[in-house]
Amino acid sequence: MKHLLAVADLTRDEGDHLLGLTDAFAEVGRRRVPKVPALQGRTVSWLFYEDSTRTRLSFEQAAKRLSADTLNFSVSSSSVSKGESLRDTVQTIEAMGVDAIVVRHKSSGVPAQVARWVDAAVVNAGDGWHEHPTQALLDCYTIRAHLGDLEGMRIAIVGDIAHSRVARSDVWAFSLLGAEVTLVAPPTLLPPNLDGWPVRVSHDLDAVLGDLDVVYLLRMQRERMTEALVPSLREYTARYGLTARRVDTMGDKSLVMHPGPMNRGVEIAADVAELPRSAVIDQVRNG
Amino acid sequence: MKHLLAVADLTRDEGDHLLGLTDAFAEVGRRRVPKVPALQGRTVSWLFYEDSTRTRLSFEQAAKRLSADTLNFSVSSSSVSKGESLRDTVQTIEAMGVDAIVVRHKSSGVPAQVARWVDAAVVNAGDGWHEHPTQALLDCYTIRAHLGDLEGMRIAIVGDIAHSRVARSDVWAFSLLGAEVTLVAPPTLLPPNLDGWPVRVSHDLDAVLGDLDVVYLLRMQRERMTEALVPSLREYTARYGLTARRVDTMGDKSLVMHPGPMNRGVEIAADVAELPRSAVIDQVRNG
Amino acid sequence: MKHLLAVADLTRDEGDHLLGLTDAFAEVGRRRVPKVPALQGRTVSWLFYEDSTRTRLSFEQAAKRLSADTLNFSVSSSSVSKGESLRDTVQTIEAMGVDAIVVRHKSSGVPAQVARWVDAAVVNAGDGWHEHPTQALLDCYTIRAHLGDLEGMRIAIVGDIAHSRVARSDVWAFSLLGAEVTLVAPPTLLPPNLDGWPVRVSHDLDAVLGDLDVVYLLRMQRERMTEALVPSLREYTARYGLTARRVDTMGDKSLVMHPGPMNRGVEIAADVAELPRSAVIDQVRNG
Repeated sequence: MKHLLAVADLTRDEGDHLLGLTDAFAEVGRRRVPKVPALQGRTVSWLFYEDSTRTRLSFEQAAKRLSADTLNFSVSSSSVSKGESLRDTVQTIEAMGVDAIVVRHKSSGVPAQVARWVDAAVVNAGDGWHEHPTQALLDCYTIRAHLGDLEGMRIAIVGDIAHSRVARSDVWAFSLLGAEVTLVAPPTLLPPNLDGWPVRVSHDLDAVLGDLDVVYLLRMQRERMTEALVPSLREYTARYGLTARRVDTMGDKSLVMHPGPMNRGVEIAADVAELPRSAVIDQVRNG
Repeated sequence: MKHLLAVADLTRDEGDHLLGLTDAFAEVGRRRVPKVPALQGRTVSWLFYEDSTRTRLSFEQAAKRLSADTLNFSVSSSSVSKGESLRDTVQTIEAMGVDAIVVRHKSSGVPAQVARWVDAAVVNAGDGWHEHPTQALLDCYTIRAHLGDLEGMRIAIVGDIAHSRVARSDVWAFSLLGAEVTLVAPPTLLPPNLDGWPVRVSHDLDAVLGDLDVVYLLRMQRERMTEALVPSLREYTARYGLTARRVDTMGDKSLVMHPGPMNRGVEIAADVAELPRSAVIDQVRNG
Repeated sequence: MKHLLAVADLTRDEGDHLLGLTDAFAEVGRRRVPKVPALQGRTVSWLFYEDSTRTRLSFEQAAKRLSADTLNFSVSSSSVSKGESLRDTVQTIEAMGVDAIVVRHKSSGVPAQVARWVDAAVVNAGDGWHEHPTQALLDCYTIRAHLGDLEGMRIAIVGDIAHSRVARSDVWAFSLLGAEVTLVAPPTLLPPNLDGWPVRVSHDLDAVLGDLDVVYLLRMQRERMTEALVPSLREYTARYGLTARRVDTMGDKSLVMHPGPMNRGVEIAADVAELPRSAVIDQVRNG
């Protein structure tokens, strides 16, 4: 397993193995000097065609804890704006002596294409609406840390499934590890075709909330409103926002999760994010 | 003393202690390998809501000399532009494993607010017109290195006091350490209320110059002219600019200081910045 | 030899010495941990007044392999936009404890001027249409690695010579090391005066191609078309573009080189860049 391109490619054994490695690495993170020499002398480069400080810093911190050097290929100020092809950019980065490339791109499949062009290891940090596999792995690790195991857990992913690579990766990861996944969204925010997805579908958050072990909220983008996919944010919040009142209907040990950044007051009430059952900060830490 | 938020909060003992530490650290800076392992395995993050390459690099260099790792949270390309709350941003950074956060923000009090939200140490790198405590500490250290002690020294701060956090922090720091501070500015560039400030006020630079140990010039922003606070830069320079002729009226051992970047030809004549009595480069070095 | 400002300043001995050092450093690059402590405790700063991710990352990677610390002085977000003078900026960087400054600027001669202001070592990473000496050195190293020696080699530089600092530095470097250089370009893309240049000139690529050891292609900028220096990119490609058909007329061991980023389909055909005789990726690696 050289690259990490999509959760849909992983076997159950590979998923379990990665989560086991994460246990060992989480222990490192709690040390006074949280570093191991695993990647000493290796160079990791970011190739982000979409801005994301959070995701980049999370990878950078992980790379430093593994003692890797880092090269930050910032796309806006690069030769890309001079019309250089993606392939030339990637081969140039590799020729500089890079051992791993972390790619984020607005088009699905770009990380897989990059992996065909280089000898370096490639990690997908989000490609279009396709996948965001490291987010799914950290989500699985967070659930396991709180609830012991994903086997048999009932998890709802709530919100804009159609435009979410996080939702896609989480669906595959959660079900790979034995959880039952329900998608909760208005019909306009579901993908047009769910054939082959290992999920149930509901349009009614209140109807499913009482039976859940985890409610996973997605960020509600304001642009969905201008696209007329939801009538208004207020209407969305009324039907799908996680309020304190709705949390009261959940089981005592159930978790609230969100990939961030949160739109407080839209998909999640400001006070709900601060509840003990909110695992949002743990998700960042585990990233 | 966990945070550094404002000079106004410091006791005389704390100020003396910090300057003593600086002596030891300045010695490190003169070594062939200018590094100590004091912060090995620790991570320092910048959270700058105002651009400042100078200040950021100065902190970065200091962090590297203490062997810290650094995470540069660049705000313009971050989730902040997606509307994430300051609190969520700060808690996200801390969850990534950050031990200290250096905050610059256009609003007074933000670093203090951040300090209430996190367990990490917080350093104020400038908040609105409130304070810029590290600038004041390096200024005190620079004066002490040149003149031996601040006790009884006569220091004038000249220029746009009203809009300067450097002036505020310097006033508190200089007087904490025993200096007599005079503010020299046209009335339009003084704060509306100086009750409780340990300062004298003058509108006439030439009248005070002969008695000074230190003249501390502030950068004159061009926008003050469009705001009609000064009639013209030429007029400002004629009355408050430090020219070679004015330097001739100063005592032999008196110092010229400026926090940079200098507007040569406005608040300071081009040749004055190059005089032996100019401590401007020492200020940067001591930063 | 403290600075590296221009190839035109180098003696043959200095050139040979630098290439010899590169041999030793290239061996370091092939190690499992590709690092030496040569610059441990030293700080290298970039001062780039023109954006260039490729060049900056190449220097950054080299600095890290020499164990230097790095400070990235990004000009767009710096005091420069507040009108600080170049001299003040440079002296500020040096006062922060910088041992070497790598300068890129749109005006010829700026790195030499910076070298007069500071005690730090200065490396020219490109100044106007003047020189780009590190590109020339890596080009010489790449030719030597493929062909054994530059002595007597026949090299054509093809394209927009007039606006290319790479061409200027390469002309001096190639001829310093004993190669015969031919410039191939339409008259509009040649400098107005070539007196004293150790070159021949041709306007006919096909006429010279058969006798070359190296064909060095320059990037064709689209703006040359709007400036009416070439009638159209299609016309330029027809007369000066390196197509597979033209490569067939070259000697078996001859090399194709390009400083990047390539405009595939303009100065170089897409498939030509992938041929075994293309040294483009080696150039990046040797950088």
